[in-house]
Amino acid sequence: MGNIAACCRSFWCKPKNPDIRISLPAICFVWQIAMIILFGLFVRYDDESDAHWSEHKHKNNITSDIENDFYYRYPSFQDVHVMIFVGFGFLMTFLKRYSFGGVGFNFLIAAFGLQWALLMQGWFHSLDPNDGLIKIGIENIINADFCVAGCLIAYGALLGKVSPVQLMVLTLFGITLFAVEEYIILNVLHVRDAGGSMVIHTFGAYYGLTISWILYRPKLDHSKNLSGSVYHSDVFAMIGTLFLWMYWPSFNSAIADHGDGQHRAAINTYLALAASVLTTFAISSLSAKKGKLDMVHIQNATLAGGVAMGTAAEFMISPYGSLIVGFVCGIISTFGYLVITPFMEKYLKIQDTCGIHNLHAMPGVLGGVVGAITAATASESVYGHEGLVNTFDFEGNYAKRTPATQGGFQAAGLCVALAFGIVGGAIVGFILRLPCCWGDPSDENCFDDEVYWEVPEDEESIPPILEYSSHMVGKNTDMMSQSNYTVEQS
Amino acid sequence: MGNIAACCRSFWCKPKNPDIRISLPAICFVWQIAMIILFGLFVRYDDESDAHWSEHKHKNNITSDIENDFYYRYPSFQDVHVMIFVGFGFLMTFLKRYSFGGVGFNFLIAAFGLQWALLMQGWFHSLDPNDGLIKIGIENIINADFCVAGCLIAYGALLGKVSPVQLMVLTLFGITLFAVEEYIILNVLHVRDAGGSMVIHTFGAYYGLTISWILYRPKLDHSKNLSGSVYHSDVFAMIGTLFLWMYWPSFNSAIADHGDGQHRAAINTYLALAASVLTTFAISSLSAKKGKLDMVHIQNATLAGGVAMGTAAEFMISPYGSLIVGFVCGIISTFGYLVITPFMEKYLKIQDTCGIHNLHAMPGVLGGVVGAITAATASESVYGHEGLVNTFDFEGNYAKRTPATQGGFQAAGLCVALAFGIVGGAIVGFILRLPCCWGDPSDENCFDDEVYWEVPEDEESIPPILEYSSHMVGKNTDMMSQSNYTVEQS
Amino acid sequence: MGNIAACCRSFWCKPKNPDIRISLPAICFVWQIAMIILFGLFVRYDDESDAHWSEHKHKNNITSDIENDFYYRYPSFQDVHVMIFVGFGFLMTFLKRYSFGGVGFNFLIAAFGLQWALLMQGWFHSLDPNDGLIKIGIENIINADFCVAGCLIAYGALLGKVSPVQLMVLTLFGITLFAVEEYIILNVLHVRDAGGSMVIHTFGAYYGLTISWILYRPKLDHSKNLSGSVYHSDVFAMIGTLFLWMYWPSFNSAIADHGDGQHRAAINTYLALAASVLTTFAISSLSAKKGKLDMVHIQNATLAGGVAMGTAAEFMISPYGSLIVGFVCGIISTFGYLVITPFMEKYLKIQDTCGIHNLHAMPGVLGGVVGAITAATASESVYGHEGLVNTFDFEGNYAKRTPATQGGFQAAGLCVALAFGIVGGAIVGFILRLPCCWGDPSDENCFDDEVYWEVPEDEESIPPILEYSSHMVGKNTDMMSQSNYTVEQS
Repeated sequence: MGNIAACCRSFWCKPKNPDIRISLPAICFVWQIAMIILFGLFVRYDDESDAHWSEHKHKNNITSDIENDFYYRYPSFQDVHVMIFVGFGFLMTFLKRYSFGGVGFNFLIAAFGLQWALLMQGWFHSLDPNDGLIKIGIENIINADFCVAGCLIAYGALLGKVSPVQLMVLTLFGITLFAVEEYIILNVLHVRDAGGSMVIHTFGAYYGLTISWILYRPKLDHSKNLSGSVYHSDVFAMIGTLFLWMYWPSFNSAIADHGDGQHRAAINTYLALAASVLTTFAISSLSAKKGKLDMVHIQNATLAGGVAMGTAAEFMISPYGSLIVGFVCGIISTFGYLVITPFMEKYLKIQDTCGIHNLHAMPGVLGGVVGAITAATASESVYGHEGLVNTFDFEGNYAKRTPATQGGFQAAGLCVALAFGIVGGAIVGFILRLPCCWGDPSDENCFDDEVYWEVPEDEESIPPILEYSSHMVGKNTDMMSQSNYTVEQS
Repeated sequence: MGNIAACCRSFWCKPKNPDIRISLPAICFVWQIAMIILFGLFVRYDDESDAHWSEHKHKNNITSDIENDFYYRYPSFQDVHVMIFVGFGFLMTFLKRYSFGGVGFNFLIAAFGLQWALLMQGWFHSLDPNDGLIKIGIENIINADFCVAGCLIAYGALLGKVSPVQLMVLTLFGITLFAVEEYIILNVLHVRDAGGSMVIHTFGAYYGLTISWILYRPKLDHSKNLSGSVYHSDVFAMIGTLFLWMYWPSFNSAIADHGDGQHRAAINTYLALAASVLTTFAISSLSAKKGKLDMVHIQNATLAGGVAMGTAAEFMISPYGSLIVGFVCGIISTFGYLVITPFMEKYLKIQDTCGIHNLHAMPGVLGGVVGAITAATASESVYGHEGLVNTFDFEGNYAKRTPATQGGFQAAGLCVALAFGIVGGAIVGFILRLPCCWGDPSDENCFDDEVYWEVPEDEESIPPILEYSSHMVGKNTDMMSQSNYTVEQS
Repeated sequence: MGNIAACCRSFWCKPKNPDIRISLPAICFVWQIAMIILFGLFVRYDDESDAHWSEHKHKNNITSDIENDFYYRYPSFQDVHVMIFVGFGFLMTFLKRYSFGGVGFNFLIAAFGLQWALLMQGWFHSLDPNDGLIKIGIENIINADFCVAGCLIAYGALLGKVSPVQLMVLTLFGITLFAVEEYIILNVLHVRDAGGSMVIHTFGAYYGLTISWILYRPKLDHSKNLSGSVYHSDVFAMIGTLFLWMYWPSFNSAIADHGDGQHRAAINTYLALAASVLTTFAISSLSAKKGKLDMVHIQNATLAGGVAMGTAAEFMISPYGSLIVGFVCGIISTFGYLVITPFMEKYLKIQDTCGIHNLHAMPGVLGGVVGAITAATASESVYGHEGLVNTFDFEGNYAKRTPATQGGFQAAGLCVALAFGIVGGAIVGFILRLPCCWGDPSDENCFDDEVYWEVPEDEESIPPILEYSSHMVGKNTDMMSQSNYTVEQS
């Protein structure tokens, strides 16, 4: 059933054929080979991961191996890595019959994306001027994971409605756009965004939402019976939620400044997330008959505080400031699930499977605004002179920049992220609608793993019933002894 | 069905009404706002997380950012964080229809509890005498997670029988009691308890058991059909078990002394846990027909070694000493599940859903005793002079204390933990029985997520049934349509 | 049903009796007590985990506690620990009714194995010549986890077909063989193998495959109905896959040299794993009708890149070299699942439940070869003089060894690992076939948790049915009570 795509599509009337037997292997092979060639041409180890490290130590008077950046950042890197693959992956297993696709395609596009991100970000940030090569170390692989996060957020809006081939294309362009956007925001505008409220979340969310808008499926309710969760799939999704929630302090602190920067970013994120949980439970309960909680809210809106602290986490926003941010985000995000997502689907024609508008777009924008305000109000009395310079990197060309100016640039950075998300999403969405062998599912087959996966038969209920009904006759004796047999099978 | 609470309660004859639509949001909002205000008044960054860190470095001749306590403790903190949210949370998903409540309410109360713990513990331990403000850093957030653990242990005894509103109250008082108890034990008595055998486990377990005793439900067998596990819920619970088991070395070493203290605590805990696993399997197999293992034992008693090493982990208990502790605890704890829990339920009227008496109470007390003995027998020949001073903090007012005296104080600390657990539990249990809008479930609705959660319908078996019934003929039709209906309910 | 083993076995005609009520507790108790005695006689803390650390610091001019090896390796240790217990454990939950056995027996044998490994490896590597005692620290417990990994790999081939008693024996001998093999490879031949492509994966896989070959069950298809997965069990297995995949960089870098060694090993492994994912998806899709992906491939072959980087990860294989290794391994491993596993089962009489030949044996051998080539082609121009000496440990007796010679020794090491795996497996396989009270299941009961576990009844559908049958009238009554009964059984 799931394999037969028979209906005509309204747009350019091309019948859907979700056969990806040629296209997916082709794209995987060609792109992976391209990665190998490009890595061969461009990518080498940096000073801290190269075997010349011991010479580098002597030259730079580094007394101990523990000063290698690896030891500052590796624990955070591993936490971020878990967020990308288990966090995002399992968060997307909530659909009753799309858990394979949720966790599996997340795995595929993240594994591709991080390679492409190492190259794209490397060209912009880690190019050695002496030899024109990209030198990678621990910070590069953290940033590659961050870059991938943007595309995984976008996948959240499209979950269940696109093919893995489309996802690979979305990732290729998404990473490219991300790297350019990031370069403009962080380097050209000299904006601080350690946890990526703007660079990652705002960009990723609007990128995904715009694509979803262009790929709008008017008849998506044909697969309505598969668009919800079942009991166990909701528990699986909680694995994703919790690993995202627990490791978010590492996400926001992973590439913050050594010492107090990382320390403060972790604490602020920890607090904002805690506050989000309480307001999420509150709004979720308040909105339902008898105060019954909705797993969708708990799985998602509890994370909004982490998103919104992405920019300001390393600033002196102070502990209560973090709590306020988390407090507000939990409310906004849960409210989004209750009101805005249905509104967007009905009136704006944006189908947002995971509700990324509520979890990433709104909190991301809010995070950018909070970051701008916190930066604009920074002062030497709070940070100390040296602290202010370190935190905002007011050095070199930027030695004269004031906090107020920095606040303005932060706001400009947010606009850049928005613009890249929307314009980029429009272009990529248009590409993904071209009549081509994308292999995307028909409206009837959305949210169904059967389309792209060999799904094991759950023998628990189906075979006995089918067999049974085919033998139905007259008196019940035969039927039941057979039923007896078949039920034992299950 | 799950929504209708209709029976009269024997005590004060108040009918149960598990509607929490007003009470839960109210408590979440009010308390979260209170947290924000209190944090605004009292909580600031400490020297190592403040932007003045670079000045602090100069002043204290700290040569490298890696000396920031963040790098000593952050990996352990993240492991502890995982234990609190995934470990405790998933361990409580084992019930067939209370997985949402197990992992969800765990999430809620931990997120509230850690904020309140930062304040309570801050007032006792981290108050800056200069400005009267609490200064927080990485060690504070680890301690807040520890503090929360005490309340989550208590939740284990009450799982499925109380409302989230009651849990919030339990947490508020639990954290408060914890902070006072901890202050008395660690500061007044100058007792060492890095992994909290006494402070966390003994206190938490007796706190929860006493509350459960006061909230005894004589007719709990009305919800007997939901008080067990199903196949997949047992696998989910193993996620919790394993993350607790694997990260317990981090739990016991997280706030131990830098250097050998953390190192030794991790090794000792690692060994004790391994020994617990073998004796748990042994007793579990020995106690059942044909030697069949019981998942309840494997999920819980394997962890007893970690609980019992909470106090002594940082001492020179020696590797074989750790193995002996784990060996004994695995036996005691499994034996508890087999004999003591049924006994307590039948004769002492204590209903202990997760068996915390076996996992936390007994091993916790044993851990306190082991700690007292190990401390009392400490000597300079084993520790070295400096090692002895560092390990037991025999400095300042305590410079003259001998190991034997220390052993006595350790034992006194255990008594304090017990007293606080039992007396505190009695008071809080009484409060939770007051005729008030607690929203707790009726006896028929215990262990049922339907009461507090929007539970998705498991539609898995409906489509075939529908198809089937449409082929039905003759007099079976009515019967089958009824079957259809009832299966849909399930 | 599952409990009655009635058929005669072709070999020595001994009927199977899977009762382990005496044998399992006996083996657990006796061996655990033996461990305690041996630890008491032989195992003490090393300089960095002993309370004399502060004196050791003074003596060796160590200025800071952060120089304690604990801080270099503890985060990696915890990641490896997660791989052993959650990674391997959940990877083996994929069978529809052997999830308890997969994760549970993995837990048991790992907990025993790590103790025995501390002793065996301690005698070979950490014996203090002054007092004849084993001194343990963080590196020892990482190595113990590594050693256990070899036995867990072997378990993968035997999953569902052996008893826990047999697994304990397999582990006892496996650890012993491992320690000897490791000593020969690492110390006698002075081979580098930080991530254990040869020492762990090649040895473990051939050890398990040889045992499986000797324990061949011609009538295994009698339990064919349980040898597959169901939807949720495949999602559980993805938890194992992802934690293995994410933490593999820690596995390969955990005991690499401080500084650039660990740093480079993590990056290389990260890249190889990413490339494996793409080629696994490609081959999996290419091989199936309509390009449908197979979860078995995604769960396993995506990890092959990590296995194959075990030896070369710390070498200067360069980023694109890592990608090539991952690229090739993803192809080979997926191809193995498609072609070689069925071939081996049919023609070589090797039943390999988890396909360890594809995931560990072939990539492990390839990893050894890659390591030998990379070592043989190492040069001072790439490594720098100091780097070359550090990376290959060309010091002391080995100061004169050239990279080319090293390459030869690496190849010799691979042969040793293979020989130990095959010969050791043959011996242990023969032991496990001796007519003894092993308690292994009959062919009908393989892959069935019912044999060794108290499996909860899945009562999900019973209550409605009961209700229903109580309403039955007339001639259907008998039939329904029967139906009722059989459903309860299921």
